[in-house]
Amino acid sequence: MPAMSNSATALAQPPRKVTACVIIIGNEILSGRTQDTNLNFLARTLGAWGIQIREARVIPDVPEVIVETLNTLGPLYDYIFTTGGIGPTHDDITAECVARAFGVPLVESEEIAVRIRQRPAPPEIMASRLRMARIPAGATLIDNLTGGPQGFRIGNVHVMAGIPSVMQAMVTTLGDTLEHGAIVRSCSVMAYLGESQIATAFAAVQDRYPDFDLGSYPFFRDDRYGTNLVIRGTDEGRMQNALDEVKALITAAGGTPENVVFE
Amino acid sequence: MPAMSNSATALAQPPRKVTACVIIIGNEILSGRTQDTNLNFLARTLGAWGIQIREARVIPDVPEVIVETLNTLGPLYDYIFTTGGIGPTHDDITAECVARAFGVPLVESEEIAVRIRQRPAPPEIMASRLRMARIPAGATLIDNLTGGPQGFRIGNVHVMAGIPSVMQAMVTTLGDTLEHGAIVRSCSVMAYLGESQIATAFAAVQDRYPDFDLGSYPFFRDDRYGTNLVIRGTDEGRMQNALDEVKALITAAGGTPENVVFE
Repeated sequence: MPAMSNSATALAQPPRKVTACVIIIGNEILSGRTQDTNLNFLARTLGAWGIQIREARVIPDVPEVIVETLNTLGPLYDYIFTTGGIGPTHDDITAECVARAFGVPLVESEEIAVRIRQRPAPPEIMASRLRMARIPAGATLIDNLTGGPQGFRIGNVHVMAGIPSVMQAMVTTLGDTLEHGAIVRSCSVMAYLGESQIATAFAAVQDRYPDFDLGSYPFFRDDRYGTNLVIRGTDEGRMQNALDEVKALITAAGGTPENVVFE
Repeated sequence: MPAMSNSATALAQPPRKVTACVIIIGNEILSGRTQDTNLNFLARTLGAWGIQIREARVIPDVPEVIVETLNTLGPLYDYIFTTGGIGPTHDDITAECVARAFGVPLVESEEIAVRIRQRPAPPEIMASRLRMARIPAGATLIDNLTGGPQGFRIGNVHVMAGIPSVMQAMVTTLGDTLEHGAIVRSCSVMAYLGESQIATAFAAVQDRYPDFDLGSYPFFRDDRYGTNLVIRGTDEGRMQNALDEVKALITAAGGTPENVVFE
């Protein structure tokens, strides 16, 4: 049954690698006024869908920079996610910059406008709020579970709010709209050893598992040096083998493997 | 006395704008395993010296990406600051990538090696630790107040550790070695108003102070919407005027200006 076994082969094919880039738009992050947490949330959320963030950029609220960054990065990754700059004030310029990058006009989304008008306001205030209804022509909406104005998607670019709670209420709605790729699993083990004490043996494990990404993350806690050793990769079957080798090298270096976590 | 008044003019010249870019090197930030805090610390520390971060990039531990990023960004800013990838293990490749970007060999710094050898270790472990003594030929050292291996500087690129406490113990030593530029001051005022309620009047203040950077940062706290309005700029003399206008527009919108902070 060659047709069937071909089909079985196709089904058994591992999902491809799906990549993303995050663009964080906001002077307040670059000035240090605000500590960004959106990248970390996006990394965890997208990672669980098998979408790997390969790069992140933090850029200022400068139209030319935003447009050029979108044009440069758009072709390089499967998906682009932006946060910030879609509120109602003069410094919220992301929507118009995305429209410029795609060479399309900015139009009012009736669907967003309806949602905005649900909360009554005097005309001048409503006019400002309706700025949030402007999207590039051809964009589709990203729902916003807070009930506030939606984000939008055009091409491979997903435009979301900068306020963490609102960004989270948007990105979590995207799961079904994005291609899910090979999920990168990780397992980690900790030892109260300095990085140097395991560096050579750890590098040898990396050489034996070239498709895995082995990293060591030292820390200093309770007056002791320790290292978290992390194995990341998509092949769950061989991960336990790699972990066993890492645990063995910890023991060989005089340490005790502790706190094994699979994620 | 034309010569003297020329000289006085020269002295009175405001400091120039000094710019920087931060490159955060590390898979663990992109995977979401680690929440970056180095950008925020750098922004505040450099900001106090009048060095403005204009861009930040988070990139993976991939040699080609690191080298290309350095080559691309190096010419665009007065200073480049990197964090991460200078430990003793196989995934610590920043030093060799910086050497490649500058087209110079990697050499062992005797000064770093001396510090590393102060803590005795068996030969294999010492060999790994001595990886941290490798710097591009021609680099100068950045001290490390923790007593651990130093970072280094070559050209306008400053290479520092990724562990926040160590990065901080390095960057704080740089104050005297960097050009201090015009310090961007900020003042902020909070009101329990939605952004839309002040958007038009706030934009008008921005138009009257084009050299200032006015931003509004909405929040939702204790069941109330509020907005922080921030004025940033180098001209301290006119900042109070701009603040007075912002306070007046808050009052005109029916709000109460609260929590004025100058930084």
